[in-house]
Amino acid sequence: MFDLIYHFPEQLEESLALTNQALKERKDFLDKINDIEKIVVVGMGGSGIAGDIVFSLTYSFLKSPILVIKDYYLPFFCNKKTLYFVISYSGETEETIFNYQQLKRNKLPLIVITAGGKLKVLAEKNQDLLFILPQNYPPRQALAYLTIPILLTLSRLAIIPNCQQEIEKTILYLKRMRKRLNERAKRITKLIENKIPYIIVDSYSYLPIAYRWKNQFNENTKILAFYSYLPEQNHNEINALPFLELLKDTLFVFLLKNPFSHKRNLIRINFLSKLLKENKVTHKIIPPISKNNFFNVFSLILFGDFISYHWALKRNIDPLKIELIENLKKFLAKF
Amino acid sequence: MFDLIYHFPEQLEESLALTNQALKERKDFLDKINDIEKIVVVGMGGSGIAGDIVFSLTYSFLKSPILVIKDYYLPFFCNKKTLYFVISYSGETEETIFNYQQLKRNKLPLIVITAGGKLKVLAEKNQDLLFILPQNYPPRQALAYLTIPILLTLSRLAIIPNCQQEIEKTILYLKRMRKRLNERAKRITKLIENKIPYIIVDSYSYLPIAYRWKNQFNENTKILAFYSYLPEQNHNEINALPFLELLKDTLFVFLLKNPFSHKRNLIRINFLSKLLKENKVTHKIIPPISKNNFFNVFSLILFGDFISYHWALKRNIDPLKIELIENLKKFLAKF
Repeated sequence: MFDLIYHFPEQLEESLALTNQALKERKDFLDKINDIEKIVVVGMGGSGIAGDIVFSLTYSFLKSPILVIKDYYLPFFCNKKTLYFVISYSGETEETIFNYQQLKRNKLPLIVITAGGKLKVLAEKNQDLLFILPQNYPPRQALAYLTIPILLTLSRLAIIPNCQQEIEKTILYLKRMRKRLNERAKRITKLIENKIPYIIVDSYSYLPIAYRWKNQFNENTKILAFYSYLPEQNHNEINALPFLELLKDTLFVFLLKNPFSHKRNLIRINFLSKLLKENKVTHKIIPPISKNNFFNVFSLILFGDFISYHWALKRNIDPLKIELIENLKKFLAKF
Repeated sequence: MFDLIYHFPEQLEESLALTNQALKERKDFLDKINDIEKIVVVGMGGSGIAGDIVFSLTYSFLKSPILVIKDYYLPFFCNKKTLYFVISYSGETEETIFNYQQLKRNKLPLIVITAGGKLKVLAEKNQDLLFILPQNYPPRQALAYLTIPILLTLSRLAIIPNCQQEIEKTILYLKRMRKRLNERAKRITKLIENKIPYIIVDSYSYLPIAYRWKNQFNENTKILAFYSYLPEQNHNEINALPFLELLKDTLFVFLLKNPFSHKRNLIRINFLSKLLKENKVTHKIIPPISKNNFFNVFSLILFGDFISYHWALKRNIDPLKIELIENLKKFLAKF
């Protein structure tokens, strides 16, 4: 598991090459795409989150809204004039295959991202734009493979400026930073033993990062986590903080700063930090790692992954194993 | 506070009349609207959630995507061809006024929903379509006033089928049901003393209802709450459930069923219920209250409001008072 996290930059690198190759071979598909009003990503858990992360990366320049749907039934507005990404790392996710079939019934052109399974077979048969990923990764640790095809496709279609160079620079940056991030994660892990994490980011655009941290804590560390974002948190959740009785001694609050957040959100972080101190709740402000948004988003993901990993070890838990999801699949197969 | 919750049906009723009057007076505004690709709702906390609730109500027939943005900076894709609802009950929410000014700089036609304040002054000056709400409500208990203008405007623009009759029927239904919902809420409150709520809904379309319950628990009951939705919960959060050490005895899980959820989500609810039982976590399945989606969504909101109210009383907490937000506003005013 450690290696999978540590080699995230190499995964970005390999994904750039694979994605560019696939895009080159299917220029015909992209040439036919026009009149896009919105982007819809369908995909569950560790697969679907790729769409959320693209939202964090492109908030300030994405020309069409991106909607990430994680359920069997899609909303009614999933019609034409939409660019669809259908993502399942395993290719066997039943919700995503159901989505795929629903969309195909309406003869919509689809972009499929998968490492195999039934979804790959369907996409090949229907000549969709298909990105085939390397196999044998836990989906949540294949995030680079899942994200880069979306970013480069949007670049090609001019829905975002070309971000190839930005990704190349990010790879170099992460290779330089990963050791330091790992060490920092190890140090933090010492503070949070026996705690319940509560992740607060300071902008709506970074909500997917809070959600990623939560999910990695759920899957790797096997612990529940609260998560929310400023300024919205200040309008509801904040009211519970002076009345934490049950959670007072067990909560650990991460306050993650975004380098581009509105300056009023910085004041809100300070207020929150003061409030937590007054109520004797342990917390830590995580300053921006870089002022470059691509660097910062991917660094925070890597950082959260490292924390979830070391924390699992401290809890004597195997971060890789997700026995329960296997049991659930067996249970579902009976019906 | 109890009366504010109990008279939700009367608020729907009054809002229908007010909204229809305003729409009649500003037919000119609606006639000029065309070529809508998406709906963007901006608004914080108890105001912005009106947009989320519209999503739950219209998931299966809304023709354009609805995006609810809760931050100072709006995403880049907030451009033309968009129907904007700018919502702040008080009319003084600084994020929302900032949003309003940002959008006005681009000369976009706006629909404003407010009870007064600076936002009302701006909207009157700029001849926006303005819905003026009755004053002196806590925003979170003005939800009917905030939601109906969105629904009826979308009806007029044929983005959804006309739902006037559906709302009228909902009012009658809720008047019949509210006593029973209140009694049921009181009974549940006896089970959850000293617990941490964890709300799980069984479809993505109902996520806003889980979010509403969470927020009402935060603001009225002054307690933190976990919330998530199926099937997504089964791909990450579920992994933490067998390892709850710290939370095992304190968690209370609400499993809320949607009458229209995919049948596989019902199997997932059963699996979850079994798993919670095995791990000795107290939980309660809430079956659909009605098979009519409008009835069910509004009943669940009312039900959650009642629970949050009675639970606050059990905790010797004033559900109405939100001292902390007042302190925060004073703190923000200094900068």
